[in-house]
Order: sequence, then C-alpha cells, then structure tokens
Amino acid sequence: MGAMQIAIPVYPGFTATDAIGPYEVLSRLPGARTVFVAREPGLVESDTGFLRIEAQPLSAVAAPAIVVVPGGPTVRVPTGDAVLLDWLRAVDRTSTWTASVCTGALLLGAAGLLRGVDATTHWEDLDRLAGFDATAVEARYVFHGKRVTAAGVSAGFDMALALAARIAGDLVAQSIQLGIEYDPQPPFRAGSPRSAPPEVLARVRSRERG
Amino acid sequence: MGAMQIAIPVYPGFTATDAIGPYEVLSRLPGARTVFVAREPGLVESDTGFLRIEAQPLSAVAAPAIVVVPGGPTVRVPTGDAVLLDWLRAVDRTSTWTASVCTGALLLGAAGLLRGVDATTHWEDLDRLAGFDATAVEARYVFHGKRVTAAGVSAGFDMALALAARIAGDLVAQSIQLGIEYDPQPPFRAGSPRSAPPEVLARVRSRERG
Repeated sequence: MGAMQIAIPVYPGFTATDAIGPYEVLSRLPGARTVFVAREPGLVESDTGFLRIEAQPLSAVAAPAIVVVPGGPTVRVPTGDAVLLDWLRAVDRTSTWTASVCTGALLLGAAGLLRGVDATTHWEDLDRLAGFDATAVEARYVFHGKRVTAAGVSAGFDMALALAARIAGDLVAQSIQLGIEYDPQPPFRAGSPRSAPPEVLARVRSRERG
Repeated sequence: MGAMQIAIPVYPGFTATDAIGPYEVLSRLPGARTVFVAREPGLVESDTGFLRIEAQPLSAVAAPAIVVVPGGPTVRVPTGDAVLLDWLRAVDRTSTWTASVCTGALLLGAAGLLRGVDATTHWEDLDRLAGFDATAVEARYVFHGKRVTAAGVSAGFDMALALAARIAGDLVAQSIQLGIEYDPQPPFRAGSPRSAPPEVLARVRSRERG
C-alpha cells in the first residue's frame, strides 16, 4: 500500500481526544502519514488550555486521502472561520473519506458538506444538524457515502476503527484494536444520555460541557 | 475544591493516547490544572512521529497531586533515563496518586516505585513487571494504595474515570464520562488477547506493536 495522507485540522479550543483518538488508530494503518494542520500554524491550544500541539499551515495539505475534523466547545458558538471552511470544501472534493468527531460535524455542516447526509455529533448538539440540512442520527458513528461522522469526543476511536476496516480490512483494524488494547471497561454506565443516571444527565445539561 | 496539579511527563516516543486519555478525563475535575513536562522541554514527539506536543521542564513541577506516566514502544528497550526516574521518585514522595498507562508502568517500576505492588501494563509486557518486584495483574487497571496502573493505551480512559471517582465522587466522574460521551462501541471484539481472534493475536505478536 502506498502513502496515505491523513489531515487533521485543529483550531484554538479543539477537544484533544476528538483529534487524538482517530490519529491513534488511523496513523497505524499501513502507509499512513498523519498531518495536523491549522489556519494559524504553530502551537494550537486545546479547549482546556492545558495542551498545545504543533500544526502545519492548511496550505501544507492540498489533497489528503482522509480528513478528520475534531470538535470543541467553541464550535457551539456559530463561527464563520471562512478560511477553514473553504479548505474543508476544497479537500473534500478529492478526499476518499471526510470525517468528523463530536461537534466537528458542525464544521462540516457549516462548510455545506452535510446537505442531505445522515450524520451524528455530540448528543447535546444533535438538534443543530438539521440547520445544515443533515439528518441527525443517534448513533456512535454514521457512514453516508464518503462522509463519516462520530458522536462525542471518545466516539472517534470506534469510528476510526470502523473506517480502518473499510480501508484496510478487518484483520488490520482488529490488529490495531489489539495493539492499543481497546477493550473498554468504563467503571460506570454513564456515557450516553440514555444510560446515564438522571442526576448525572441533569448536572451535565445544567452547565457547560463537563 | 482548590487547585489540583496533574503532571504528565512525556518523552520522545510516548504514545499519545496514553497521555491524552487521562488528560481528557482528569483535566475536567474541579480545580484541575494539568501540566505536560519533559526532561527536554519544548516540543516532544510521539511514537508515530506525526504529533508533537509542548512540554514544560520537569523542574517546573515540584509537588503535583497526581502524576500520570504514559507508555510508549521505546519503553520496551530498558533505558536508563536517570533524570526522569529521579523526578518520578521525587514527586512520588508527596503525590496523592502516582499512576501509569500502558508501558508507563515499566518506568514506575524502573524508578523502584512498584516494589511489592500489584500492577498492570500493556498485555504484551505483563511478564516484565516481575523484574521490578511487582505482581502482574491482568486487569484493565489496578489500584494499590496510591499507585494506579492501567493496561494498554486506551485503558487510560477507564483508569482515569475510576480515579476521578475516588477524587471527586461518582457523580462528578459520571458527569465527565457523559461529557466526553464515553459509551464505547468497538466495531470488533479484538481489544484483548482473550477476545481477539487467533489470527489477529498471531499477527500482533509477530511484529512491533500495532
């Protein structure tokens, strides 16, 4: 298999796991070359303010095979980052897969890339997808043609493993899963609004995202 | 709750998710302040070569409440990073919790911090724990006094949620879990050597990690 470029655009306020989950899985595909890019290259700070990662300019990547757009709390405020949205539209023209995690879907939507598409996002933001003419689906991840959207934050691992299987087959995807020992055993059943105890749901709904 | 410093020491070749999983969970604790540190501060490159994160000098952190040591493939080669090991011993004296993910346990072991301790690590490295007078336990994570060790890579999410509950209570931990929508749905049952199909296990065993 030849080189396969994976571009992950980041921006101030991105949620680290939204980006790092798919990075961890997809970077282990044969021939993968992952590049973090940003409108303002250099160090890009995540939503907590505690982490900065290095990013190349958006212009460093012209035709990635895969694009994975992370979300972040700031995406909830409708922003008009025209440069990023233009770049998303441009790379989507030739990408094999255009993916998002969490509220990254709202950026794909704002770029006009989810029109008529079944898609998902963080459970708190599902109702915002309709504004982009997408059909909201309550699912861990949704494949619709070459568009792939994942639910909140940690869902990027599941989505990326499913995507890895489409790209390189089940055996490769399963080997990646075993390599990262992805055998999740959450200590609580509280990860979705359907499973979380009511008091947990109320607490999260009553404030900014956890 | 007052400020609670969380230190995550990184080094060239660390596995990103080992560090970012616990960061994502623990940084959401009330009063948490997470700091990435390294013997060589500045940009520290992960095991894939595709990601660099910013780190402060080890000396910037003298008495963190929590230390979380990530692993990485290079840890498998017995190294004598005396400066890092000295720092680990020093901060462990006053830490409330000293934790590791994946082969980070081998660094804790090399620092002499796992003597007589029940501990775990990446499934491929469990037999190396005995060399540090630790008792290897096949588990997603193991609490032994203030020492907490997690299995491979992705196990840091489960460990950190359990640790968050000990620190701030179940309601807070569950709220963090819901915030990051940690409702894992791996597309395959291949995440542990017990669940993976034999051909997947053989493939991973026959080569460098994933």
